[in-house]
Amino acid sequence: MFKASVLTLFPDAFPGVLGVSVIGTALNHGLWALETVDIRKFSRHKHASVDDTPAGGGAGMVLRPDVAATAIDAVTAPDNGERPLIYLTPRGRPLTQTRVRELAAGPGVVVFCGRFEGLDERVIEARGMEEVSVGDAVLAGGEVAAQYLIEACVRLIPGVIGDPASAEEESFEGDLLEYPHYTRPRVWEDREIPEVLLSGNHAKIAAWRREQAERITKERRPDLWARHSRRDGE
Amino acid sequence: MFKASVLTLFPDAFPGVLGVSVIGTALNHGLWALETVDIRKFSRHKHASVDDTPAGGGAGMVLRPDVAATAIDAVTAPDNGERPLIYLTPRGRPLTQTRVRELAAGPGVVVFCGRFEGLDERVIEARGMEEVSVGDAVLAGGEVAAQYLIEACVRLIPGVIGDPASAEEESFEGDLLEYPHYTRPRVWEDREIPEVLLSGNHAKIAAWRREQAERITKERRPDLWARHSRRDGE
Repeated sequence: MFKASVLTLFPDAFPGVLGVSVIGTALNHGLWALETVDIRKFSRHKHASVDDTPAGGGAGMVLRPDVAATAIDAVTAPDNGERPLIYLTPRGRPLTQTRVRELAAGPGVVVFCGRFEGLDERVIEARGMEEVSVGDAVLAGGEVAAQYLIEACVRLIPGVIGDPASAEEESFEGDLLEYPHYTRPRVWEDREIPEVLLSGNHAKIAAWRREQAERITKERRPDLWARHSRRDGE
Repeated sequence: MFKASVLTLFPDAFPGVLGVSVIGTALNHGLWALETVDIRKFSRHKHASVDDTPAGGGAGMVLRPDVAATAIDAVTAPDNGERPLIYLTPRGRPLTQTRVRELAAGPGVVVFCGRFEGLDERVIEARGMEEVSVGDAVLAGGEVAAQYLIEACVRLIPGVIGDPASAEEESFEGDLLEYPHYTRPRVWEDREIPEVLLSGNHAKIAAWRREQAERITKERRPDLWARHSRRDGE
């Protein structure tokens, strides 16, 4: 079973969004497991302190290597470190849907949520942490990024989403953004559903959707479009 | 005051991670406001239904335009739509730190969380929704993306983060990823803090950090490095 262990200074942030909807139902039904570990409990310092000033000076505080490593080791020891150890940080490599699929097919993840200025570099090296970024905005901490990564993985676990086709036919899964969707009513605020979608002609509908997906991808994501074009040419 | 209104089918997902740490403290102290609106309450259909099958066929369900628009109008009417209306979807343009800074400086955001296959395209057009994606993984719904966007904005509101320098000197703020951080102890698991950081020579420290930031950016984010190099050449 897929198990997500989260190391955080804010365990109250969990399950958060992971406790609702299909992801939360799957958690309650035992389709995946969530463990939240309070990093602060592993401090042997005064006032359970976990951070200290940055060597070389500068703003903010840095998470101590001794505290972080003790917390990590307590979580990874029982399963011999078979789960990838991920450190969520804006410095990481961007999370891709390809990596999400790999993680979802494995035994789970151990996720370390950064706070303050960051984590002492020596722990990242010594524990072989995979530095991952989920997007290009800066957060106050890694907790929301952890929930993002875990939700992306869990929705791919068989049985979590009712319709497996729905999990697969999504933006990014084929390097194209999704075509526009329409549903009832047929006319809304004088706007009609495009004629072709009501034609019943499946080949025409597929061609229209493909054309729209390509147009939207070119407009909004030239990076994805370039990747898609390269792959098509192979 | 910055006000975030969230339209969602899962109001229980809020405040979630936005209720803890500096972001949650700022919420409790009235430095920003959060309103959660249940889209389902705006359905006038049987069983409070909000979705229907996609026109033209295919997997999944599509959010109805009449229900979505009624919910949106109820939220945007009181302030005459002065806040940007953002639709979180993998089809959107990627959220940048530049856009986050713009949003944080304004009166707030109205955020619509997608679910199912998506929202009827006519609402997106008719209400001028800004389609935004926060990362390249696919989620079960827009709730975690909404929390990501709101946290990124709120941390930039004056007074939310103790040290304003800390809010600014971050990855992406200068198109470079952050240099490695170190703190006490000086030796940990036989690993030492780099000598230069203990030298007290501020010019040398700054040069070393710059070099490290450039190396990490080149390795992990060739896209950011290209943008950075262009800007430096201007």
